Amino acid sequence: MINSKLPKMWYGGDYNPEQWDAPTMEEDMRMFKLAEIDIATVNVFSWAKIQPSEETYDFSELDRILDKLQQNNVAVCLATATGAHPAWMAKRHPDVTRVDYEGRKRRFGGRHNSCPNSPAYRKYSALIAEKLAERYHNYPGLVIWHVSNEYGGYCYCDNCAEAFRDWAKARYGTIEALNEAWYTAFWGHTFYDWDEIVPPNALSEEWAGNRTNFQSISLDYRRFQSDSLLECYKLEADAIRKHSKDVPITTNLMGTYPELDYFKWAKELDVVSWDNYPSIDTPVSFTAMTHSLMRGLKSGQPFMLMEQTPSQQNWQPYNSLKRPGVMRLWSYQAVAHGADTVMFFQLRRSIGACEKYHGAVIEHVGHEHTRVFRECAELGRELVQLGDTLLDSRVEAKAAIVYDWENRWAVELSSGPSVALKYVDEVHKYYDALFSQNIATDMISVEESLDKYDLVIAPVMYMIKPGFAEKVEQFVERGGTFVTTFFSGIVNENDIVTVGGYPGKLRKVLGIWAEEIDALLPSQSNQIVVTKENGALLGSYSCGILCDLIHAEGAEVIAEYGSDFYKGMPALTVNKFGQGNAWYVASSPDGEFLKAFVSELCREKGIEPLLQPTAGVEVTERSKDGKSYLFVLNHNAEDATVQLGDKPMRDLLNGGERSGAVVLKGKDLLILER
Amino acid sequence: MINSKLPKMWYGGDYNPEQWDAPTMEEDMRMFKLAEIDIATVNVFSWAKIQPSEETYDFSELDRILDKLQQNNVAVCLATATGAHPAWMAKRHPDVTRVDYEGRKRRFGGRHNSCPNSPAYRKYSALIAEKLAERYHNYPGLVIWHVSNEYGGYCYCDNCAEAFRDWAKARYGTIEALNEAWYTAFWGHTFYDWDEIVPPNALSEEWAGNRTNFQSISLDYRRFQSDSLLECYKLEADAIRKHSKDVPITTNLMGTYPELDYFKWAKELDVVSWDNYPSIDTPVSFTAMTHSLMRGLKSGQPFMLMEQTPSQQNWQPYNSLKRPGVMRLWSYQAVAHGADTVMFFQLRRSIGACEKYHGAVIEHVGHEHTRVFRECAELGRELVQLGDTLLDSRVEAKAAIVYDWENRWAVELSSGPSVALKYVDEVHKYYDALFSQNIATDMISVEESLDKYDLVIAPVMYMIKPGFAEKVEQFVERGGTFVTTFFSGIVNENDIVTVGGYPGKLRKVLGIWAEEIDALLPSQSNQIVVTKENGALLGSYSCGILCDLIHAEGAEVIAEYGSDFYKGMPALTVNKFGQGNAWYVASSPDGEFLKAFVSELCREKGIEPLLQPTAGVEVTERSKDGKSYLFVLNHNAEDATVQLGDKPMRDLLNGGERSGAVVLKGKDLLILER
Amino acid sequence: MINSKLPKMWYGGDYNPEQWDAPTMEEDMRMFKLAEIDIATVNVFSWAKIQPSEETYDFSELDRILDKLQQNNVAVCLATATGAHPAWMAKRHPDVTRVDYEGRKRRFGGRHNSCPNSPAYRKYSALIAEKLAERYHNYPGLVIWHVSNEYGGYCYCDNCAEAFRDWAKARYGTIEALNEAWYTAFWGHTFYDWDEIVPPNALSEEWAGNRTNFQSISLDYRRFQSDSLLECYKLEADAIRKHSKDVPITTNLMGTYPELDYFKWAKELDVVSWDNYPSIDTPVSFTAMTHSLMRGLKSGQPFMLMEQTPSQQNWQPYNSLKRPGVMRLWSYQAVAHGADTVMFFQLRRSIGACEKYHGAVIEHVGHEHTRVFRECAELGRELVQLGDTLLDSRVEAKAAIVYDWENRWAVELSSGPSVALKYVDEVHKYYDALFSQNIATDMISVEESLDKYDLVIAPVMYMIKPGFAEKVEQFVERGGTFVTTFFSGIVNENDIVTVGGYPGKLRKVLGIWAEEIDALLPSQSNQIVVTKENGALLGSYSCGILCDLIHAEGAEVIAEYGSDFYKGMPALTVNKFGQGNAWYVASSPDGEFLKAFVSELCREKGIEPLLQPTAGVEVTERSKDGKSYLFVLNHNAEDATVQLGDKPMRDLLNGGERSGAVVLKGKDLLILER
Repeated sequence: MINSKLPKMWYGGDYNPEQWDAPTMEEDMRMFKLAEIDIATVNVFSWAKIQPSEETYDFSELDRILDKLQQNNVAVCLATATGAHPAWMAKRHPDVTRVDYEGRKRRFGGRHNSCPNSPAYRKYSALIAEKLAERYHNYPGLVIWHVSNEYGGYCYCDNCAEAFRDWAKARYGTIEALNEAWYTAFWGHTFYDWDEIVPPNALSEEWAGNRTNFQSISLDYRRFQSDSLLECYKLEADAIRKHSKDVPITTNLMGTYPELDYFKWAKELDVVSWDNYPSIDTPVSFTAMTHSLMRGLKSGQPFMLMEQTPSQQNWQPYNSLKRPGVMRLWSYQAVAHGADTVMFFQLRRSIGACEKYHGAVIEHVGHEHTRVFRECAELGRELVQLGDTLLDSRVEAKAAIVYDWENRWAVELSSGPSVALKYVDEVHKYYDALFSQNIATDMISVEESLDKYDLVIAPVMYMIKPGFAEKVEQFVERGGTFVTTFFSGIVNENDIVTVGGYPGKLRKVLGIWAEEIDALLPSQSNQIVVTKENGALLGSYSCGILCDLIHAEGAEVIAEYGSDFYKGMPALTVNKFGQGNAWYVASSPDGEFLKAFVSELCREKGIEPLLQPTAGVEVTERSKDGKSYLFVLNHNAEDATVQLGDKPMRDLLNGGERSGAVVLKGKDLLILER
Repeated sequence: MINSKLPKMWYGGDYNPEQWDAPTMEEDMRMFKLAEIDIATVNVFSWAKIQPSEETYDFSELDRILDKLQQNNVAVCLATATGAHPAWMAKRHPDVTRVDYEGRKRRFGGRHNSCPNSPAYRKYSALIAEKLAERYHNYPGLVIWHVSNEYGGYCYCDNCAEAFRDWAKARYGTIEALNEAWYTAFWGHTFYDWDEIVPPNALSEEWAGNRTNFQSISLDYRRFQSDSLLECYKLEADAIRKHSKDVPITTNLMGTYPELDYFKWAKELDVVSWDNYPSIDTPVSFTAMTHSLMRGLKSGQPFMLMEQTPSQQNWQPYNSLKRPGVMRLWSYQAVAHGADTVMFFQLRRSIGACEKYHGAVIEHVGHEHTRVFRECAELGRELVQLGDTLLDSRVEAKAAIVYDWENRWAVELSSGPSVALKYVDEVHKYYDALFSQNIATDMISVEESLDKYDLVIAPVMYMIKPGFAEKVEQFVERGGTFVTTFFSGIVNENDIVTVGGYPGKLRKVLGIWAEEIDALLPSQSNQIVVTKENGALLGSYSCGILCDLIHAEGAEVIAEYGSDFYKGMPALTVNKFGQGNAWYVASSPDGEFLKAFVSELCREKGIEPLLQPTAGVEVTERSKDGKSYLFVLNHNAEDATVQLGDKPMRDLLNGGERSGAVVLKGKDLLILER
Repeated sequence: MINSKLPKMWYGGDYNPEQWDAPTMEEDMRMFKLAEIDIATVNVFSWAKIQPSEETYDFSELDRILDKLQQNNVAVCLATATGAHPAWMAKRHPDVTRVDYEGRKRRFGGRHNSCPNSPAYRKYSALIAEKLAERYHNYPGLVIWHVSNEYGGYCYCDNCAEAFRDWAKARYGTIEALNEAWYTAFWGHTFYDWDEIVPPNALSEEWAGNRTNFQSISLDYRRFQSDSLLECYKLEADAIRKHSKDVPITTNLMGTYPELDYFKWAKELDVVSWDNYPSIDTPVSFTAMTHSLMRGLKSGQPFMLMEQTPSQQNWQPYNSLKRPGVMRLWSYQAVAHGADTVMFFQLRRSIGACEKYHGAVIEHVGHEHTRVFRECAELGRELVQLGDTLLDSRVEAKAAIVYDWENRWAVELSSGPSVALKYVDEVHKYYDALFSQNIATDMISVEESLDKYDLVIAPVMYMIKPGFAEKVEQFVERGGTFVTTFFSGIVNENDIVTVGGYPGKLRKVLGIWAEEIDALLPSQSNQIVVTKENGALLGSYSCGILCDLIHAEGAEVIAEYGSDFYKGMPALTVNKFGQGNAWYVASSPDGEFLKAFVSELCREKGIEPLLQPTAGVEVTERSKDGKSYLFVLNHNAEDATVQLGDKPMRDLLNGGERSGAVVLKGKDLLILER
């Protein structure tokens, strides 16, 4: 459980009363009570306020705010305020501002604006964190520390260049080893001195759209910048720990945000928290996948939903209102996948600057008589009623999908075979297929143990890190079902090709050889034709993007290509390896194929759906202390009928018991104890 | 009347004989006579010619040109030549070149290229203006001064940064007041010292496409840059006035050009002049609206059509020829809306550089036997025949549309709710509705008195400046009809939200509350459904972009939304307020609705169409000395039949009288005295 | 013949064994033999390897590589390694890196990365070339020198600015002559001192997409940069010649690459070589045109196919595999148009960096059992069998199309009339028409003698250089047929308009005057209507982009426009001039018109097709020593029947004789001696 001081689903969010006057804050307190809001994230962007100059600190307003919250029994998620540096700092210490991808020195402005290797930023961000911890570690309402905010963005300044050389030195030891790892013999880019290395950006090796001349250098720069920001996090966390020994520390992540290796970050966080901002047209299964990924960051430990909007956003092109019921439904979707908090950005709207049209519990009108507030208040009361029932419960899954940030970087940096290949989309295709079949699914790192799973899918596993292929072999040998796809097993951790035939280190377990890789124009497609009887899979399905031209070398051919000069070559194979099966999907199939395919795999492995699928209805389960809680979420605008089975289950939200065919209203949900 | 020295529609345009030899200029003089050209704008880009170095001036060629024009009875619009600085100046005084939006220091090149806060530019531009005035103020053919050319573009250099701080100091007095106005508590951007302020551009608070983190700062930077360029204009105008006491001074504006607040500029101009460059697919009503706006800059005073092309342009993607008759038709369209001149860019084509494929009265072939020249010559003769009949006549309108540059900046800088919202397009929708009904319409500033109008429409009046809401209340109280729309009344002059419920200060007069604002995807639409009998308005119409979810608080609901979860909520309301009515249009309707809507409003207020509408035929009227002149312009390619009514009117162009049904040929027009 | 040391079609390509170990190179040697590979291009990117620091050189690895190749009878195309500078050089001599179009100083990275006016680059590139020549000029396998690699890209640094002023001084002599040539009176851009001149880029006169304020300046900058890079080539070539007297020197060109004036370059090359990289959707006739252009660079002399991919590329958006047979077919297409080599990029794939997914003879799997290797080996054996039969044979054509890089620059820099006008596309339209009729066609420069041709087509000959119009007049006078189009004859070599009526200096020979030029929207079209009987031409055809409004002044009107206000005006004219005809095509016609048009022209001039056309089958001919070799290439995927005529011809690839109707398999070809 995150914090025994507040043993229920925390309900609240970002709150910036330094932007308004004391009477308004009084009114906020009144309205918080109406909505059962019990936590506020404060001090997120107050650095300039609490440190008005290099030499002076002023905590008086923060004291006042914390006192007021304390008086009103609102717990506090206390931010360290370092998500944006003060203007005086940018002027006095220009090293705190970044140099951008185009090589331009930035001036004061924005947020995510500090160079992670700036001496001034590192010094003063650690110092402010320490001062806050020193002052507030005994504050009674403090339930969690919130370091900085939404870390992200890269810098290309001379301090970063210097740090990058040190980072590379630490990784490779000698310049010869670096030249080999970066393959600098190509185009004669051999480095003879560490000082010759410059950051890869639009002035050197890269150009817009993730393009690069040297994948290995660009890959390492991403690792390095992710590490540099993580060091900034750790400097603050360590400073906090000098004074605040027990309160958990986190920072808010951003789902599939590309720039940071969150699996590496999560090791340093006490609890994962994240900000969930789907658009009106984001697939529900994409949001579900992202929740699962955030849960997977710490191997299934419950996470915090740190931010979501009560209604609309401001930064999308078209900022739709959340339809009635959707805020509640999506809040429970987070819980259904492992969240133990429901928190908003923001509790009250700003009246100036760029986020003033971002939704809030308290809107510009300032009173409680709004649709949005009413929905928030109703949810608040429900969460009180749920108490600690669901807290710290876990999702149990027999199926897992492997996700890897470094692999994503490598795939997206690749020059060829196709710009149409998007790693996250390919992963989502497989997640969506399992999701639509109500199969509980974990999103796991390449470092995760596979022992607890029966089915592991690793889409586009282009980069094979040391040990991964061996782990897969052991997993299959012991009876597991492993699935991978085209453009897998190609390179090592430095993006150097494994010679001797694709899919390299996975070739043995898969029993195939991929001789060529054809890239299809957007107007082209091929077909995966399953000719032999194979459960529900029989038939012809569309595929595209890439088509591997493979040869079975021991594997059984389950499907063939339907057209082009490689018509008749294998498109889907399975290799018996020890007790298990290793599948290779040689192209990017349509959803229809994938649903049939994963159903068949689950059937073989005895992985049961949580419920029989109903279109548009999501089903998940969390368990603790021998009890299971089934979430049934109707994402349709209309009523849906769900088959619950014969055994009655307790209805946590509505009371009573449920079984058999149940009609769920549009956007409504059930939580059932079974 | 602009100038008693030339008491007819001035006919001529930009003329750059410094680009060719004396015999060619002789030939020009011959051809000017054939076309009745009687004015030439000279010296527009001659700075390098007349000031060949920092220390020397050489007016010999300009003397020669002016002598030759004088001998040929061609009046002169004398430019101050400061629209582009000389190359030597850029080299010797690098402060004259700008720093662009990306933060890049520009080198010599282009035009609109001088930093408005450059000490060297300010010094030498005022000096050259003074020297010209000193030398030529008694030149007999001088009828107007033309300061610089098409002012525009912003600069972000350190001189501008310094001047911006001074500008802000003058506006806000204290750094505390500035922090409040700019809402810098957001993201901890508090300034403790003026020197911490940097210009908002791509290196600080903004990014491409008018996006910004701080609307208030970006808004002020636009004000500041508009003011800076205006100061440059005033420096030159003041220098001219030292010697030339009576000759009017202007600079050529550019219609709805976004970067300068032309209402503020117009106060400093003796006469408004502007450059009209519609494309082949620009709606005729858009050009009409722009003419009306230019007329409105000085509250209805006649303006100069300073530039238009005789045929094609060069800078559009596809530079169509003006079809036969179109140049004449569009020239009279300018006159029909208040122009007292018909002038071209350019009288003779350049043979090098980027404007050599821009149309001219005298084309590259060099003789008069071209379609373009023939059309110009025919129009020249007509204008001689019209004499001073129309000069200084005024447009009388009972309907007005409010237009505001600062509101436009604020709307377009807004982060959310929708990128699809374009201020000028929304204004044009209403203008087009009135235009299509032959309702005379003024375009007015928020400072204009509303007393003379019966109907005032303020589309998307997002920013309410001090005094505007009160003026509207008085206007309605006394019986006026006021119309405003969704996304109105939201912020004050600093883009700070007026709390307590949208539409803020307009809420009282409108009798409604807008609880939420839904942004629609481009693929989505809703409907405005008028269920109760209301003149011609009954029916269902499409709407989109934004849908305000409003509650009537005293206002009568005239129409409801037709779909989505807010189906049945008000989409169109009217509030009785004193003697008048205040309407709220909660979404962006289609043209069909707007035509019916404005017809109904005009009918109620007794505002009569000038003539019964004929599709594609524009009708306007100018009056003076008790006489009215009706313009009937057939923009169709085909004949059109127009009902003139029973009372015979004198036909100014063709002689005789006209009444009843009249057939107008395609692209032909009538000017009728009634 | 290129080199008597290797008297057959050279077969091999780029080879970079410095990227892998000695055993791998041994394996390469084994596989080269299997594929009959007899030439390797080495040392292309080895500068950092052979010159590890400013003071030291190390040829030991290159020695080893050359020894190994020598032992295996593989000839060598020896590159000078200067296509990318070493990292140490960028650090020690920052002048070697470029300043880009945006004005940004680049850092180390990429290739094409050296400033052509960098003193350090010029010094060290000439020095390394000289050292290589000194060391290897007696190397037995050396058959050709390969200077640098794919020269390209422009620089805008201060060294280039200084050199540009010197270049301009040399061209124009005085600043007054320069001001006139650049038309700087426009916008007052007069230069009084050479030092005021700055390179035209995004910080001065130009902006993205080839847009400029001053066409003449931008045109000269392109000439200057092309010349600067050519000087770099010459410095290296001269250094080589100090030691290597007889071995030919080349550099690899890139077809219609826009930035370098290859006709000027070709004069300095001993043999033209080029890199051919069509996409899967590049029209076959476009590749054919480019081969013809490369052949035309040195007036018909055979050229080298220096690079092509055995299968896929890596840098296209979608990198399709070459279908079975296509690599062979396209190799022979090069030969069919004049190539005397068939060479690949690359013989073995890299395993790191951005070209690792570019096809190679030896793929990542590393053995010979791949489709790609098998096809390469089969072709290798065929080329051995062909021996020297085709070497040094020539294409004889009676039809020619004029192509000019400077004209292309001027057309594409033009501001107006239409962004849709693309020079290369217009040229290709005419080439395609001749190609589809099996008419042998040369691509020639404006300097080429026209004496040997009966038909000369100069599409969009916008810029008329001194002497060209006179040459055309003489050509027509003596009986030639000349064709030109809209937007021709407009400007001189400095992009200054020839006044007195378009098409300027071509007006006399064409007998027409183009009064106006209409630009059509993409949605618009007009028609070319041939009303009088004129061979196969009778009918109505679509046209667009630009429509010249012309008047026949002596020319006969063959077709008229079909619509718009210029309906009935001439769209196609022919002028009898001396013994010949001069045609003017006033708009951009569809392909159907052009096929009929060129057929008719050829019929009149007695220019016979090589064979009767079959759709998708290309036919060319090379001749030497009184023998002709007919190439018949079936680009269709399916079988095609070709009519060879009655006279039996020897089948060079399959043996035996062929005549009459012959069925060619999809992607198959014939070479027939007749």
